[in-house]
Formats: sequence, C-alpha cells, structure tokens
Amino acid sequence: MKTIAILGSTGSIGTNTLDIVERFPDKFRVAGLTACSNDEKLEDQIRLFKPRVVALSDASAAARLRRRCANLPVDILAGEEGLIQVATTPEVELVISAIVGGAGLVPTLAGIRSRKHIALANKEPMVMAGKLMQDEARRHGVRILPVDSEHSAIFQSLEGHRIEDVRRLILTASGGALWTVGREELTDVTPERALQHPNWKMGAKITIDSATLMNKGLEVIEAKWLFGFDADQISVIVHPQSVVHSMVEMVDGSVIAQMGVTDMRHAIQYALTYPERHSCQLPPLDLTAVSGLHFEAPDLERFPCIKLAYRALTEGGTLPAAMNAANEEAVNAFLNERIRLTEIPQVIETVMNDHVNQPAKDIETILEADHQARHAALAAIEDPIRVHP
Amino acid sequence: MKTIAILGSTGSIGTNTLDIVERFPDKFRVAGLTACSNDEKLEDQIRLFKPRVVALSDASAAARLRRRCANLPVDILAGEEGLIQVATTPEVELVISAIVGGAGLVPTLAGIRSRKHIALANKEPMVMAGKLMQDEARRHGVRILPVDSEHSAIFQSLEGHRIEDVRRLILTASGGALWTVGREELTDVTPERALQHPNWKMGAKITIDSATLMNKGLEVIEAKWLFGFDADQISVIVHPQSVVHSMVEMVDGSVIAQMGVTDMRHAIQYALTYPERHSCQLPPLDLTAVSGLHFEAPDLERFPCIKLAYRALTEGGTLPAAMNAANEEAVNAFLNERIRLTEIPQVIETVMNDHVNQPAKDIETILEADHQARHAALAAIEDPIRVHP
Repeated sequence: MKTIAILGSTGSIGTNTLDIVERFPDKFRVAGLTACSNDEKLEDQIRLFKPRVVALSDASAAARLRRRCANLPVDILAGEEGLIQVATTPEVELVISAIVGGAGLVPTLAGIRSRKHIALANKEPMVMAGKLMQDEARRHGVRILPVDSEHSAIFQSLEGHRIEDVRRLILTASGGALWTVGREELTDVTPERALQHPNWKMGAKITIDSATLMNKGLEVIEAKWLFGFDADQISVIVHPQSVVHSMVEMVDGSVIAQMGVTDMRHAIQYALTYPERHSCQLPPLDLTAVSGLHFEAPDLERFPCIKLAYRALTEGGTLPAAMNAANEEAVNAFLNERIRLTEIPQVIETVMNDHVNQPAKDIETILEADHQARHAALAAIEDPIRVHP
Repeated sequence: MKTIAILGSTGSIGTNTLDIVERFPDKFRVAGLTACSNDEKLEDQIRLFKPRVVALSDASAAARLRRRCANLPVDILAGEEGLIQVATTPEVELVISAIVGGAGLVPTLAGIRSRKHIALANKEPMVMAGKLMQDEARRHGVRILPVDSEHSAIFQSLEGHRIEDVRRLILTASGGALWTVGREELTDVTPERALQHPNWKMGAKITIDSATLMNKGLEVIEAKWLFGFDADQISVIVHPQSVVHSMVEMVDGSVIAQMGVTDMRHAIQYALTYPERHSCQLPPLDLTAVSGLHFEAPDLERFPCIKLAYRALTEGGTLPAAMNAANEEAVNAFLNERIRLTEIPQVIETVMNDHVNQPAKDIETILEADHQARHAALAAIEDPIRVHP
C-alpha cells in the first residue's frame, strides 16, 4: 500500500490519477489533495477518497468547502501554505505534482525536502529550477519520476542501458493543433481552434503550449534535468500520430523507443506503480489499426518557441524561469484574446532579451526572476508597438 | 581484447562480422574461422586476420587450402570434427555461430560445452534443439546472444525490465520479397524473384525463408528458447519498412521497441561488444527520411509456413527439428527449380504429418529426427502426387 498526495487533483492529470487509484484500492491510499479553486470537484473527491488533509489555493473556495464539509474528518487548508502542508504530510510516500505552471514549484520542492518521491507532471518547476530540484532530490534520496508521456518514454527506454552508451534523446512532438496550418493563417487562429489537440486531452495551458510547440521546448529543458543530458544531446522530431512517445539513440545507432496508445493514464500508472507494472484497463496498442507512423523535422520558422527554449537552456541561469513566466502570461493573454497566437513567441522573446540573467542559485532568486518576467510580459502584452511590430 | 572464432566466416554474417573486427583491432582477436567450401575467400581471411586454426566442411577444399597456405602458421582442419575443434579452441571466449542451417548445431553445442559464449546468427540449431542448448548453456555458465536483428531487438527491449512484466514479444516481419504478390501469382514465382529481398542483404536460404515467411516461423521458435516465453506470448506483425526491428509489450500496455537502419552489422556489433556499445560507422537512423512506418497482420493463408512453425512449437518434441529439416530440403529443391515456391509448405506439412514425434531428450534423437525428415522431404519432393495435389 502506497500513500500518496496529489497536488492539483481536480485537473486533467489529477482526475486521471484518481481514476487509477480507484482501480487499485489495495495499492494506493490518498492522504492529501489540493486544487486551485474548484471546491465542488474537490468535495466529490474528498467524499470518495477520504483524504486526511486537503488545500485550495483560493481562500474563499476553501472557506466554502469548510462550511460544506464541517462534519467530515478532513482538514481543509488554504493558500500556498496549505499546499505545502499537503505536500509534506508525514505519511505520504509519493507526491503527484500536477499543478499547472510555476505555481507548483514551491509545494513540489517542499515535498522533496520532506523526502517524498515525486511523480512529476508539472514540468514548469523543472524548467524554472531543474538543478535546484535535482540537487535537493539527491540530497534527500528522492526519486523524481516523469509523468509526461515523452519523459516517461525516455525513462522507460533508458532502463537497463548504460548512460555512457546514449548518443541523444529524441522527444517526439505531435505538432499540436496547428501543425498543418500555414504561416499567414497562424496569425488569425482563435483560442478555440488552438485548443483542439489532435491526440491528447489535456488542460488549456498545455494544449496552447502544444500548439505553439513551446510545450516541446519546455520538455527539452525538463529532459535535461530529469536525465542529465546537455542541449546538444536532446532533439525533437514531429510525429503527428503520437504513437512513439519518445526515443533514445545509442552510440552504436540503435534506437530504443517506447510506444503506446495516447492516453496519459499509461504514464501516470507507471509512475505510480514503479518499479512494478500492473495490468491496465486501456486497450492495447494496435499498430495494424494505425494508418502509418510519420516523422518530420520541426519547423522552427513557423514555431519559433522551440528555438527560444534551446536558447534559455544553453544560456541557463534564471533565463529559463523568465522564459517560462513570460510564456505563462502570454498564453493567458492569448486565451483571453488580448494577443494573437503568433505574438506569444514575440512576448517571450522581448522578455528574454530584456532579462538580466544571473545564476539560479536559490529559490528566492528564481522566484524573483519569475516575478519580474511576468511583470515584463504583462507590459509587453499591453504595449502595442512592442508586440505588434 | 576479446578472442573470437567464427563458424561460417565466408557467409554474409561471417564477412560482416570480420568487417567489424577490422574496425576495432584493439578489441577483437580472431583465433579461428570455418567455412563450408569457399577455400579462396577463407584464404584471404587467413592472410588478413591470422587465425591460429581454421576448418572447412569440404575435405577437398581443405586439401586445396593446405597446399596454398603451407608456409602460414595456421592449422587447416576438415569436416565436422574440424569445425568442432575450431569452436572449442581453448583461448576463444566468444563463438559467432553463423553456419547456414542445421549443420551448425553440433559445432555450436560443442562451443557451449567448452564454456564459450555464443553470438547466435544460426537460428536452426535453436529451432531443432532449443531446450538442450539452453540447458547446456545454463550448466556451463554460457550466454547465448542473439544476432538476428529481431531477437537482438527483443533482447535490447527487455534489458532492464522485469520478465514478469512482459505480456508478449512482437516480432516484426518485412514480409519478404513476395508480400505484395497475389495468391495465384505465388505459384509461378522464380527463385530469382524470391531472392530479391526488399530490405536486407542476406544469404539465399534465409532470403527464401523470408519470402515464404518460414523465417518468421523459425524466429518464433528461436524466441521461445532465447527468452523463455510460450507460443501464445510471441506474436508476429508485418512491417514492410523493417525500421522497427521488434517489440516487447508490457502488462500495462507500454510497448518497448528497438529500431535502426536495415544493416545486420548493428546486431552483430552489439553481440560482439555486449554489454558495452561502441560507435558504429553506419549512418544513424533518419526517421524523417522514411515515408512512413506501416504495420499489417500476417496473411496466414498466402504464407502458411508461420502456422506450421506455431504447430511445431506447440507440439514440441522432435517436431521442430523435423519441420526445420523438411524446410531446408524444400528450399533447396525450390532453388534448384525442382518444386514451386508454394510447394515448400506442402512438403513441410507432409513431413510433419508423417513424423512420429518423441521427446527431444538428447542430441542423437534430434539428429535422427533431422535425418529422417530430410529423407521424407526428399521423397515428398520426388513424389508428384503428394506435392502437386
């Protein structure tokens, strides 16, 4: 029996994780859950999974939930402090980190420092503070297991092979909702259109990141910190069918790949059950039903976000945190129809160009870079001259 | 420095192995070589690689070679006894078993009993005597490494994973030279046509086996003995591009695959350098240059040999050896234009139906089954009523 806490239990990864927990009642116990502001869904989860402690980022949502659950044996906390308390609950062995964006950094780090293993779906903390997180994980004997299908694939493909035998990691990218849309047309894409991911059902932020290919850029940085390879050993290939979830090329040219159906419960379940595997209710991959597996080089002109991410990874320091913060603000502005899709990379690049880079020596420095970059991004979003040249 | 002997050094696998040895002069020393009857090519290899001992199956070829190499420091032996002596040369650590067909069984088994690790390209011995070979390998602490690209792929895909987590092995089949040829047309296929393999350059016997898909049937049986899975855990999928060399499906639905360019030197080099990997002169796999990876179920009506192999595997005993012997004779008869391609499975099935099965308890029993089946196959080949119904 493994005792878990889920940071971000009402989101896409969170609910899928609870789906799996429900299938294996003798294997997992839920001790803690957190959400941003969806107190109604969290209440349902409390009644079903009976966690000892929950937290909501939003204080008024927490107050509402407290009123409705007054007679239940659950502590209902609020704010970042509440999230940290859930992540550090003594009996928890594994924290599923599934908050959207940089907001997951502080509670996830708190989990690591309390010696909880981490199943990491929330890639932004790794982008912002990858070195710090891995240093802390090593210091506390903690395992950070990937939940992203691409990194889970790399993880599974590396198993049993010697790190010195690896030539490069190859992350596959579906290309997102707009891979076949021409350059001119990209300017006029609506949020509705960009949210139509061809293969994966995910939250809004990551779906827009997939449409701009920034998601793959973030994954390149995440891969560096999860697996310890440099930028020139991590490459990206577009594979619209998303059947090959990612690959590892060995020095002798042999390529080990992990494949599967496009359902995130696979990677979540593997992270939950690792180092074991358990049978899965999903249908097996039927390669004869796929019309063909295709691969293309990414188009960096139409989708410049990947280039920005490689630049951030290469320059290092606080630049990845600044890039990530600018991206979050730009995606948000696009979803609110304040900027065009093609302005997302422009906002990010503006912020990156103005960013005064420095070593990412501690969490305060990183959070300060994040804060300043968000401020700069909002200014760029408001500035019609800067963003609409 | 690893000291090796190659059984079948003048064939396709043998010469490719020596290609690799030449690239790594500080890693491999060749102590012994054997060939069937090609004394001229063997002489070139003696002059280049300076083995201490060689053997030719053909005694008159050996006599010719002895005359021409009289002043060289090499022992030149003849016949099966000579092959056994090469396979058991004291300083040899690894025997590359690359003889074509059942003729490889006795010398390979002799190598195992002399505690040589085996790089196995010659699949027929495993088909004939898989249990015996693995029992002997275990008893003598010997590792049998696959050289077939499919089994090398399975081996690489299993590395680091728990055997109990595996649901099934999936062998890929190119479909061979005749995959797109209609049932009627198959009857009139010439040896020249059947020898045109779309992806792999190999010897004549295995290329015809690929065209009838018996090669895949033999590989299913080989996979059972190499990896310890039963018939219902080994499946076959047709993949005309041969980029995915084979796959392993886990109980949770995750599929681990090994991919690469279609050059057998990859699998040979891996077997030679295992557990290490060394860089390879071959160009890396470029998935963007492949027009698409396609997968189909095998057509067991047009290509009944796979069914025969599953039957042999399921019934066990000496039946796989009988099937293999009948296949060798039938392929030979087809190459000599004595039977049609579509008569190959008919000859084999006739021999299998008449075979009196018994436990494959020792090498003598197996060789006797092989002998009788060859006799029966030749009779079937000569009998126009039986084979041309």
